[in-house]
Amino acid sequence: MTEPGLPARLVALVGSGFVLTGSAEMSPYLTDYRGNYYGRALAVVKPANTEEVATIVKLCFDAGVPVVPQGGNTGLCGGATPLPDGQSVLVNLSRLNRIRALDADNGTLCVEAGCTLAAVQEAAAAAGQLFPLSLASGGSCEIGGNLSTNAGGAQVLRYGNMRELTLGLEVVLPDGRVWNGLRGLRKDNTGYDLKQLFIGAEGTLGIITAAVLKLFPAPKTKATAWVNVPTPAAAVALLARFRAACGDRVGAFEIVGHPLLELAFRHLPRCRPPLSTPSDWSVLVELIEPSTDVPLLALLERTLDAAIGAGEVSDAAIAATQSQADAFWNLRENANEAQKSEGFSIKHDISVPVSRIPEFIARTDAALRVWLPGVRIVAFGHIGDGNLHYNLFPPPGENEKTFIARSGEANRIVYGLVAGLEGSISAEHGLGQLKREANCRYKDAVELELMHTIKRALDPHGLMNPGKVL
Amino acid sequence: MTEPGLPARLVALVGSGFVLTGSAEMSPYLTDYRGNYYGRALAVVKPANTEEVATIVKLCFDAGVPVVPQGGNTGLCGGATPLPDGQSVLVNLSRLNRIRALDADNGTLCVEAGCTLAAVQEAAAAAGQLFPLSLASGGSCEIGGNLSTNAGGAQVLRYGNMRELTLGLEVVLPDGRVWNGLRGLRKDNTGYDLKQLFIGAEGTLGIITAAVLKLFPAPKTKATAWVNVPTPAAAVALLARFRAACGDRVGAFEIVGHPLLELAFRHLPRCRPPLSTPSDWSVLVELIEPSTDVPLLALLERTLDAAIGAGEVSDAAIAATQSQADAFWNLRENANEAQKSEGFSIKHDISVPVSRIPEFIARTDAALRVWLPGVRIVAFGHIGDGNLHYNLFPPPGENEKTFIARSGEANRIVYGLVAGLEGSISAEHGLGQLKREANCRYKDAVELELMHTIKRALDPHGLMNPGKVL
Repeated sequence: MTEPGLPARLVALVGSGFVLTGSAEMSPYLTDYRGNYYGRALAVVKPANTEEVATIVKLCFDAGVPVVPQGGNTGLCGGATPLPDGQSVLVNLSRLNRIRALDADNGTLCVEAGCTLAAVQEAAAAAGQLFPLSLASGGSCEIGGNLSTNAGGAQVLRYGNMRELTLGLEVVLPDGRVWNGLRGLRKDNTGYDLKQLFIGAEGTLGIITAAVLKLFPAPKTKATAWVNVPTPAAAVALLARFRAACGDRVGAFEIVGHPLLELAFRHLPRCRPPLSTPSDWSVLVELIEPSTDVPLLALLERTLDAAIGAGEVSDAAIAATQSQADAFWNLRENANEAQKSEGFSIKHDISVPVSRIPEFIARTDAALRVWLPGVRIVAFGHIGDGNLHYNLFPPPGENEKTFIARSGEANRIVYGLVAGLEGSISAEHGLGQLKREANCRYKDAVELELMHTIKRALDPHGLMNPGKVL
Repeated sequence: MTEPGLPARLVALVGSGFVLTGSAEMSPYLTDYRGNYYGRALAVVKPANTEEVATIVKLCFDAGVPVVPQGGNTGLCGGATPLPDGQSVLVNLSRLNRIRALDADNGTLCVEAGCTLAAVQEAAAAAGQLFPLSLASGGSCEIGGNLSTNAGGAQVLRYGNMRELTLGLEVVLPDGRVWNGLRGLRKDNTGYDLKQLFIGAEGTLGIITAAVLKLFPAPKTKATAWVNVPTPAAAVALLARFRAACGDRVGAFEIVGHPLLELAFRHLPRCRPPLSTPSDWSVLVELIEPSTDVPLLALLERTLDAAIGAGEVSDAAIAATQSQADAFWNLRENANEAQKSEGFSIKHDISVPVSRIPEFIARTDAALRVWLPGVRIVAFGHIGDGNLHYNLFPPPGENEKTFIARSGEANRIVYGLVAGLEGSISAEHGLGQLKREANCRYKDAVELELMHTIKRALDPHGLMNPGKVL
């Protein structure tokens, strides 16, 4: 340890109950959600407010000790797990969990970083409004982590990523200064938009301690359909048709490949086929509407009828009840559970322009089947955002360890094709430790240099979440 | 001139027809749109493509010569006018005017910086889609300038600022390197979102040469109303009512104070009162809708009926024809012309949280009437974004020069109250030369330091558009 007095100073600051140094008590904070990363730390500190965060960061800055920020610890890329060198202090933000203010007429909510996503959604709903971000981990993930990874999800098509849902930030900078950028303004052109640097930076430029978020009118009616489409190209055409006919009423537009359904039917007894005829590809489409005066079901039916006439849809079921709509969503949202039950898979969270999704699927499927005949490809995701979760299971009978050992080969095939289609190797999960090196290979050299320039300018000693992103 | 060979090199690069050095031929490029700033330059250069821009910037970088980027030269804060020292090279981007690509299924358009906004709107419309940014200067302003000032306008409530309309950028950096960030992705979390730095930076960090813009389904129907409201607070309540009832169908929500209407009726013969009873405040509300199946007029009528019942609206006229809707819009959009005809005014482009607009108006009106009894306050703007154009005309009979001389006092009163309400002294016009100093007074010190840190990191020699923003 560079500074022997540091733990005592941390205890003096936040109280001994909130400075953990024993390996057993630190353990839950040092492993990531998927169990892929195991780190070590000098201490885990749990401050209660922004001032305490700032003082902790300043103490670490003065001592030359790296800082790792952590929220709900539900990330998928190891971004909140410290390195194994054990040289850093982990700052867990969960105690910064106050809803600071709600301004209904301005459509804004000011919350602290440690609020869970569910708590933020509830605070908005209590005021009759909507905070649209929605993730499977909503009960445990925290807003600071959602901001730091620019979280996405199924509602991005309609409402945007976390970045688009944010008007202002409060950030503790690497040297312990506090930047108060908690503005709730829709228009502000008084210089560089600094909040954009910290959103999606995975804690490498500072620690987000609070944010002003946008609220929206809550939809009052929904109409949901499960739709069989012959090809991914038909799904893209169907999306264009829905957007032209229904505009931003298209609240979600998800694609599901049949192999995911097979896993769901195999492992999850509550999941049943929504249509009697199977199809290689299906789409889950949901229309949402704030007015009860709009004939939403009729609009959905009419658009589907036209799509059937154009050959974009082979069969469709419209949910007659909320429980039927929930059943459709379960097929999509239990993807992780169904896959986990099947065993290990090589996962990719990629995006390409929406128009190039069919080409991506065709070319990548073909390349992988040459690479490993019999490989099982489970693809699904937010096709409306050009974002696919494109996961690989070993051929039947293949040894799992052999398959795991070939992950790098599969990544290179998938990422190479993504790069060729001007896509992204991390659409919504971030880089963390998992994709840091791969990103350096595929990213434009000038862009990487600019990222390093920004990092050096804001964190010249490299103390903020080292070993992540860059 | 630091480098005597520079003009010859510029001529060798772009051709003698595109390097202007005579004061008469340079003159139109050296004065801003409002005629408030007169600059000088070593040369005005008009490159044809990104490579030429990059070479020009590299030549200037090597020679230590500052560079001033300029688009359609319609800015309102002197951001595209060089300083009077005559030491810089002005790079006009108007010849970079190609539409590079339109991807209908991805909803994206790739355009060069010198495309006029009107040309971009037309390219989108030709594909049956909408590029929503809309400004009075659309025929002459250029996309590079719209990006560099993060342009706003009346459609921000529904579609966002230029920042929200942009997916990717191509930028020539201060040392002449080209960053190709022309991605058309809705989701991409592979590091810092660098494009955000250049949008709204007014050319102080690099020169934007091309962009990938978002397209939207074109609305198929509209319903427009002119609505008298008793107070600004009633307008805010009416906005909340419309958003709850109609969601994102609210395409525009503009407030107009009666003094602006008086100027319009006095100076513009084609402008007539839309309602027989005058009102201190009016609102122009427009609903837009992509589906022809939705009873839009009925929705507008029903929402207005409820608002009349709640006392938020005293009288309303719904446009029965497009020409009547145009007449309503003319009252709002001819604001500049009507004001110009009246004479000099002290202008403010401010924003506060929407909920605090009534308080801002009440307190600022009162403070200014103490400062200068009889001052005429002309306020109007995008109340849905919390953005007011809040302009002051001298009392009847007041000497104009005396009034002009007191602009600084008025600014301090207005900006002080804006700052107290956590607002912005430049909502949508940027800082340029006009508000550079004032911004330094009202901006948080840590934020200013961060801005300087970014500027030094990306432009260490201070060669990009000096004397603007910072």
